Amino acid sequence: MKVQAWRKVPEEPISDPELRGVHIRIVAGPREGARNFVMRVFEVDPGGHTPRHNHEWEHEVFVLAGEGSLVSAEGERPLRPGDAVFIAGGEDHQFRNTGSQAFQFICVIPAGK
Amino acid sequence: MKVQAWRKVPEEPISDPELRGVHIRIVAGPREGARNFVMRVFEVDPGGHTPRHNHEWEHEVFVLAGEGSLVSAEGERPLRPGDAVFIAGGEDHQFRNTGSQAFQFICVIPAGK
Repeated sequence: MKVQAWRKVPEEPISDPELRGVHIRIVAGPREGARNFVMRVFEVDPGGHTPRHNHEWEHEVFVLAGEGSLVSAEGERPLRPGDAVFIAGGEDHQFRNTGSQAFQFICVIPAGK
Repeated sequence: MKVQAWRKVPEEPISDPELRGVHIRIVAGPREGARNFVMRVFEVDPGGHTPRHNHEWEHEVFVLAGEGSLVSAEGERPLRPGDAVFIAGGEDHQFRNTGSQAFQFICVIPAGK
């Protein structure tokens, strides 16, 4: 059992040049003993974005704060705090900060991805 | 791909008499196409609590709002918005609302549990 404030968790190093202004913290992962799925907190700076990509695994996302958007094959749609997003494996997606404050969301993925 | 405000998701029926004042919404589950893990939003009324129990599967929890506590074999410890909690399989646990407002948190579990 582990309880930790997400802000105090060290950031993961980012090597993908397609991420801009993105800070990722793993709040439930192998370090905590999580074997099946991993909870991460993303913080995207104003003007920043995740890569536009797709992959075989799914995302379960919950927006915590800020204003953003989800870009997909269906276009771009706004995201607000309290929005839950399910992205199936293979679906193209990108998260963008469209506001002037930090855009924060939880993103859960299968372990080992 | 699905985007939905958690408040608009219908509540799950509750049959366990050990839950008091607990409202559960599945925001990413079989209905959304999630096969591996399920994201739920819990809202606990003031004075309410989840059952004190344990089970073989893990919880990955993120506190959204309100004041609460986690009761376990280690005692009772406060939870605040932004706290991430990992509970391994087999660990005794209970979530309590200790404040005067709704206590809200995300709880992710493996599919089929």
